[in-house]
Amino acid sequence: MQVLRNARVATMDGHAAGVPLVEGASIALDGDRIAWVGPTADLPAAFEKAAVRDLEGRLVTPGLIDCHTHIVYGGDRAREFEMRLEGASYEEIARAGGGILSSVRHTRGASEDELLAQALPRVDALLREGVTTLEIKSGYGLDVDSELKMLRVARRIGESRQVRVVTTWLAAHALPPEFRTDRAGYIERVVLAGMDRGHAEGLIDAVDGFCEGIAFSVDEMARVFDRAKALGLPVKLHAEQLSDLHGAAMAAEHGARSADHLEYLGPDGVAAMAKNGTVAVLLPGAFYTLRETKLPPVQALRDAGVPIALATDSNPGTSPLTSLLLTMNMGATLFRLTPAECLRGVTRHAARALGLSDRGVIEPGARADLAIWDVQHPAELSYRIGFNPLHARIFGGQYA
Amino acid sequence: MQVLRNARVATMDGHAAGVPLVEGASIALDGDRIAWVGPTADLPAAFEKAAVRDLEGRLVTPGLIDCHTHIVYGGDRAREFEMRLEGASYEEIARAGGGILSSVRHTRGASEDELLAQALPRVDALLREGVTTLEIKSGYGLDVDSELKMLRVARRIGESRQVRVVTTWLAAHALPPEFRTDRAGYIERVVLAGMDRGHAEGLIDAVDGFCEGIAFSVDEMARVFDRAKALGLPVKLHAEQLSDLHGAAMAAEHGARSADHLEYLGPDGVAAMAKNGTVAVLLPGAFYTLRETKLPPVQALRDAGVPIALATDSNPGTSPLTSLLLTMNMGATLFRLTPAECLRGVTRHAARALGLSDRGVIEPGARADLAIWDVQHPAELSYRIGFNPLHARIFGGQYA
Ligand SMILES: [Zn+2]
Ligand SMILES: [Zn+2]
Repeated sequence: MQVLRNARVATMDGHAAGVPLVEGASIALDGDRIAWVGPTADLPAAFEKAAVRDLEGRLVTPGLIDCHTHIVYGGDRAREFEMRLEGASYEEIARAGGGILSSVRHTRGASEDELLAQALPRVDALLREGVTTLEIKSGYGLDVDSELKMLRVARRIGESRQVRVVTTWLAAHALPPEFRTDRAGYIERVVLAGMDRGHAEGLIDAVDGFCEGIAFSVDEMARVFDRAKALGLPVKLHAEQLSDLHGAAMAAEHGARSADHLEYLGPDGVAAMAKNGTVAVLLPGAFYTLRETKLPPVQALRDAGVPIALATDSNPGTSPLTSLLLTMNMGATLFRLTPAECLRGVTRHAARALGLSDRGVIEPGARADLAIWDVQHPAELSYRIGFNPLHARIFGGQYA
Repeated sequence: MQVLRNARVATMDGHAAGVPLVEGASIALDGDRIAWVGPTADLPAAFEKAAVRDLEGRLVTPGLIDCHTHIVYGGDRAREFEMRLEGASYEEIARAGGGILSSVRHTRGASEDELLAQALPRVDALLREGVTTLEIKSGYGLDVDSELKMLRVARRIGESRQVRVVTTWLAAHALPPEFRTDRAGYIERVVLAGMDRGHAEGLIDAVDGFCEGIAFSVDEMARVFDRAKALGLPVKLHAEQLSDLHGAAMAAEHGARSADHLEYLGPDGVAAMAKNGTVAVLLPGAFYTLRETKLPPVQALRDAGVPIALATDSNPGTSPLTSLLLTMNMGATLFRLTPAECLRGVTRHAARALGLSDRGVIEPGARADLAIWDVQHPAELSYRIGFNPLHARIFGGQYA
């Protein structure tokens, strides 16, 4: 039992528009759970004998949650980034071995240990900014063994670091060359068969897909979601990033926890998401990297009451981003989210996008995963660019 | 005398389009200067007895140079950032005490010690990414004493940290309320009189101004530059950020070291800068924060042979940015600079923007200010977003 005293606490509970702060607050921790939070004057007698730590007036938020990443992969794409800026065409880059298939080649060729070693510095960058829960997708293996290897590495990240990892089966990310003329075969023999195996091995927490003209159709993804449902696995979808295929509506009707990207989301998608409680996960890092100009329909999502989350989309091609604080600034600067929306987007709403109700808020019974910040006001977390004011991270009730 | 062995060195000398690397290289340091650089096989016998450090194949670049910052100021503007995103008008923000005058009020009201304490965490963020030379401007005091106070704080930053500080007199940043009806009086009694005093006290390394419709005219800035010339002080200018006043051409004709921002720079400005050797300092952080859509004329600058530098513009209003690596990514992503141009922009060309020929390159006689990186290829420094691969910083020949 311990008590954190003299804190300013952004509990992130309730539905207020801003971020209500509890000033002069204490937080009582019992093992890895929060036991009590409120003004220190009201601290129950039961906690009076607990060890006390003085936070000297610092801001405390829930530990941050990055609810959409592709942070496990082999190789990097810096040379491709350079070629593009030097004027190379997409065809020239493909001929030079670039594009997503470059990541697939390097991911297939790497051992679990190698993938883990390459991912950990990126994960550590997130953790240094207060991240305590991290979603990690497969999707650069594109064969059953390599996809499962990626999720084993994701699990090992959770064992190697003080972070809770949530895994997502994303074999429906791209069609590998060996299935170019057999889309149905890829879905059957890799996406579905691998899902069965990964589920049996306990490697899959949720199922995702990339629904886009250059990837998989709405009908193909519906087939994948039906299998997920049969296995009792929750679903989510990369939808409406480059065009409006109405994937978000299909996903919402399948009870998807989230639809992600959403720049081209239309009114039907907004309505279906609102009706089914599907979270909108916005990914400003990809918007920025692709120099997209079409903004996601933020006001329509607000008006419909769709919860908005923010995530890094950390990946080697379209968002080589490993800062959730910068993601918050991009959410505010590029998408005009308020700082309060940005903070909810990486705490309470990010938890909801992952189907988790025990984190992303500071309330009795929630996990004792906290971020302690050297800032005066929560808005500073979104306002600054390339600055990390984290004072300390608490993971499972322990300074980590 | 010491030798850094087993390095991959981006010397940044010469005029090649890319970043030529010396592989399997050694760098010999003699006190705070570089004595020799080249393939280890060619290391002169004179250095054979020196202490050796093995860099294990890491990339070495010159220490980074942030050649345009306003990093000393009082207060912050997070609340104003939040109000704007919550829909407040500029008038409402001004009525609530926001805008640049908020920074002026807090800067005037703060002691040197307070300004120093507030600036150091921001400076430390830059240093953690390998910055070894930092330009700092006045401009939030707008009276003689407060402007000089800012430059004293800038000097103290150079004494408090392992970084070389270059100071810039920017009293011509904005017109304070007390001179609203007396522009000439402000120039005479604050900008020029303060410049005389600051020069006499050794506080001023260069003179700058904000030449814009909302700030000072080309004629007003020419008057300021004439006084600088009389005192033997180099000049530079914030020019063509919001409109084309032809300030860059005027500055170039006054022999300016740099013209900065330049989104609205026209062909006359490019030609004048090329003719006079004026460096173009691009500031993508302000472009990003203001959601500017007009791009600086990068191709015209290249074609004319104008050196391009990149800087954070670190300031509380339009660029609360304290990452030069992110600035490089923004230079590539937003301005389509190549990774090689981005790296030159924060080394060799940034040094030139400050009139310094003894840094920004790794060559005999240059200062032994170096950055050692855990990357394979220099392009990674621009490619990643929100990731700091710095292994170590060497300042004046010492690990710092
Ligand atoms: Zn994604
Ligand atoms: Zn500036």
